[in-house]
Amino acid sequence: MPTASTSTLLPPGVSGAAFAAALDALRKALGTQAVLNAPDALAPYLDPFAPGDPTRFSPSAVVLPASVDDIRAVLNVANSARLPLWTVSTGRNFAYGGAAPRINGSVVLDLKRMNRVLEVNDTLGYALVEPGVSYFDLYEALRARGSRLWLDPPAAGWGSVVGNTLERGFGTTPYGDHAAQQCGMEVVLANGDVVRTGMGAMTNGTSWQAFKPGYGPSYDTLFMQSNFGVVTKLGIWLMPRPAGYRFGHFKFRRDTDLRAIVDTLRPLKLDDTIQSQGVIEHALRWAAGVSPRRRWYDGTGPMPEAAIDAMTHTLDIGRWNLRFGLYGPEALVEARLQVIRQAFSAIPDARLDATPYRSSDAEPEGGGDRSQIGIPSMAAFQMLNWRGGNGAHIDFSPVCPTTGADATTQYELIRATAQASGFDYYGGFTVAGRHMHHIFAAIFDKDDTAQSHAAHDLIESLIVKTGQAGYGQYRTHLAFMDLAASQYDFNGHALMRLSDTIKAALDPQGILSPGKQGILPRRYRS
Amino acid sequence: MPTASTSTLLPPGVSGAAFAAALDALRKALGTQAVLNAPDALAPYLDPFAPGDPTRFSPSAVVLPASVDDIRAVLNVANSARLPLWTVSTGRNFAYGGAAPRINGSVVLDLKRMNRVLEVNDTLGYALVEPGVSYFDLYEALRARGSRLWLDPPAAGWGSVVGNTLERGFGTTPYGDHAAQQCGMEVVLANGDVVRTGMGAMTNGTSWQAFKPGYGPSYDTLFMQSNFGVVTKLGIWLMPRPAGYRFGHFKFRRDTDLRAIVDTLRPLKLDDTIQSQGVIEHALRWAAGVSPRRRWYDGTGPMPEAAIDAMTHTLDIGRWNLRFGLYGPEALVEARLQVIRQAFSAIPDARLDATPYRSSDAEPEGGGDRSQIGIPSMAAFQMLNWRGGNGAHIDFSPVCPTTGADATTQYELIRATAQASGFDYYGGFTVAGRHMHHIFAAIFDKDDTAQSHAAHDLIESLIVKTGQAGYGQYRTHLAFMDLAASQYDFNGHALMRLSDTIKAALDPQGILSPGKQGILPRRYRS
Repeated sequence: MPTASTSTLLPPGVSGAAFAAALDALRKALGTQAVLNAPDALAPYLDPFAPGDPTRFSPSAVVLPASVDDIRAVLNVANSARLPLWTVSTGRNFAYGGAAPRINGSVVLDLKRMNRVLEVNDTLGYALVEPGVSYFDLYEALRARGSRLWLDPPAAGWGSVVGNTLERGFGTTPYGDHAAQQCGMEVVLANGDVVRTGMGAMTNGTSWQAFKPGYGPSYDTLFMQSNFGVVTKLGIWLMPRPAGYRFGHFKFRRDTDLRAIVDTLRPLKLDDTIQSQGVIEHALRWAAGVSPRRRWYDGTGPMPEAAIDAMTHTLDIGRWNLRFGLYGPEALVEARLQVIRQAFSAIPDARLDATPYRSSDAEPEGGGDRSQIGIPSMAAFQMLNWRGGNGAHIDFSPVCPTTGADATTQYELIRATAQASGFDYYGGFTVAGRHMHHIFAAIFDKDDTAQSHAAHDLIESLIVKTGQAGYGQYRTHLAFMDLAASQYDFNGHALMRLSDTIKAALDPQGILSPGKQGILPRRYRS
Repeated sequence: MPTASTSTLLPPGVSGAAFAAALDALRKALGTQAVLNAPDALAPYLDPFAPGDPTRFSPSAVVLPASVDDIRAVLNVANSARLPLWTVSTGRNFAYGGAAPRINGSVVLDLKRMNRVLEVNDTLGYALVEPGVSYFDLYEALRARGSRLWLDPPAAGWGSVVGNTLERGFGTTPYGDHAAQQCGMEVVLANGDVVRTGMGAMTNGTSWQAFKPGYGPSYDTLFMQSNFGVVTKLGIWLMPRPAGYRFGHFKFRRDTDLRAIVDTLRPLKLDDTIQSQGVIEHALRWAAGVSPRRRWYDGTGPMPEAAIDAMTHTLDIGRWNLRFGLYGPEALVEARLQVIRQAFSAIPDARLDATPYRSSDAEPEGGGDRSQIGIPSMAAFQMLNWRGGNGAHIDFSPVCPTTGADATTQYELIRATAQASGFDYYGGFTVAGRHMHHIFAAIFDKDDTAQSHAAHDLIESLIVKTGQAGYGQYRTHLAFMDLAASQYDFNGHALMRLSDTIKAALDPQGILSPGKQGILPRRYRS
């Protein structure tokens, strides 16, 4: 247990006296309650699923602004004192480091108090939200006004809509590519200037959440996975509730079916016959949603083939499972399903379970399908019980072109590497169109130091190996942000030179989220 | 006829001797043929449809690089001599200024010699092209390899794929939002650095045209409608040829039907029942594709209501006409059409003409439908004959949220303003989803000075009036780039301050396309 009443960690290059003065200035500007530096107050800002040492990425303090003006006041202090500010919307991205900062001793700028749903437009189908609004919050706001709009929940509904969108998270409905559904932002730059992007740049504008690009260069994507500004408002398109829906679950018998599954699915996604994201899940990931691993295998090392076979048989699932949703008037849904059924009939032993057509006005049933009709939940956390102990996971997230050959290459490489480290292949592909997010989770008992370090080493090794094969990460844990960035190396890392140039222009003191996705101002480089 | 053998126009602030030396340096680097400054060679780089004085936007010279290395050599000279370079891919955007530069005396950097189709991927559905590739070129390249991919042609097929995409042009198929279908770029920065965006930043990458964002901040949209770099390669997603298609044409009887048309169409676009862009055309625009104006009315001033009524009756078209395309297997196309027919049956007197279902393997018929199956043409130029004389047009292009109320407000405002200047309402809406491009064209006889100036003044007045009503331009002619930009005024023009900051960081000498979309380095400000 910590005993000191204030953290003794300091931001790099900032003296204890200067730091104390800066915190005083922040308290003066925002109020005492808005500045935290007692160790127990900082504990929630450590990496909750740290693979290895959980104090490697530690904050020195936390500030909690309640408004854009508060943020401007914080930036003013930070520029003077050269405080690194690690911005989080709410900091719930547990698989990638939670609210913990990349640079030890950073001050976390936690935006959770800015939690207003500023607008819901039922006609055009969008919401404008602040960073502290979670998917649960937005869902409740939509229900409260009797809106017919659906949101697209990510795996864990407690996450911030703004945070998840900026990190390019995803869900499973037709609006599953969250960054692609973003339209219009307000951003506070490091110098305190407040910019509205796109059509929001017209003071009297009518189209901020209707048209993304605006006039001239468009900046929204500059502020995603980025440390170029603090996003304070974000527009997100929402899906008008369809007349009804059906869900399909194809079960495939063989590990080697993966190639045909992807090649059959691709044209159905490209022409939008399947409207939702296509989710291809390995048997283990499916099983982890409903059972602990020890029910199927209690030995050491990766789960043997025979145990997986017995598990799929008992659970009546496939070695690979494809889930999808069809939405709209019944005749259209049925016509879509007929085309899909026909296409997959070419894969031997493929079996389809499909739910009956259901009106959207009906009360939703429980279970995994709820996320597919826009209802956020925490069901994904069930996976933490898979391996037993104090369950944690760290995700490995390579981008995969939507071809059977690429999917098979990634799967075989990851499975072999994981098994060699004693981990199961626990993963799946979320198919957006021309690309898939391939997500592999290393699940471990975080009270088991050896397992925790093994998870860290496995992810590092996977990033290196898949990088050599030409596959890059779409997102990664704090511990691997530099490694993942280093693989984007064309023309001697020209993309990073561009990032460094823009970073220096927009944030000359380097105060905003240093190290984010590998963008590290010079003074923090060791 | 010009008589001098070299242009006497100079770039701002560059002496005659310095300019001559710079041209010599460019000739030495690129070859004599690649540098033009004879007046007759420069004539094609004047605004072909100039509203008012065609020499207002004149180049001093033209350089024609054949490679990225050539571009780097040009940048080297331009940085030394402070030559403004106005980049065009091929310069065919005739409604907005053609290849002419915003700042008089700029050197046009014409990329038309860089015209390779670098890759076509039939599996993932994309092409990677250089700036000089026109839609005709790409179409021929696809045919030559027996590709089953369709491109989405803009109104005029001779335009550059890169140029049109960067300007955020659009067409009518499901891939009609060109900027939205862009995936991956190569850009040469003002300092000569060559950057590949997104997954192209991995030297050995597999996913450059498969996944847009890459890792960290994403930059592609920074180079659209922009002067931050020279785009030398661009990935564009192409539509896999569907099994077949049907086209629909709804005819609506009353001017006031516009509100109901838009409100009926919106949900069908938002849930993708209608896959193509929806094109809502006023009777005059339809008629201009098949006839000259004098066939219907030969008086002065705007065409009277009675003449419009007689015209729509004779041509058997609506006062408003909605065109759309449905694509895919026959059962799905029929199910879609049934839903659409039902929805529009609520508008009194709406009539639907629909083509029969047609296999994509059948040879396409002629006519306006060809663009809807990916075949580029120059049919749009027929409109230039509408008014007679030496036909020209200048476009006014406000963004409109997809609501009947907004559409009606814009239509009524534009019609009244145009008629007061003696112009007809010649326009329509291309409906993408939550926004529409409302395009109004002022058609004039460019040999008629008064008409030409009236067209200029009308567009200026329209930009001001719609701006006051909260509607901004998505793109505009050289003459109005500053005016349109000035309306994006939130927080004292914070967006332009951001643009200026990034411009100064990436292009400190301000050599790249000064004035583009209002972004004007300080030395060019008068």
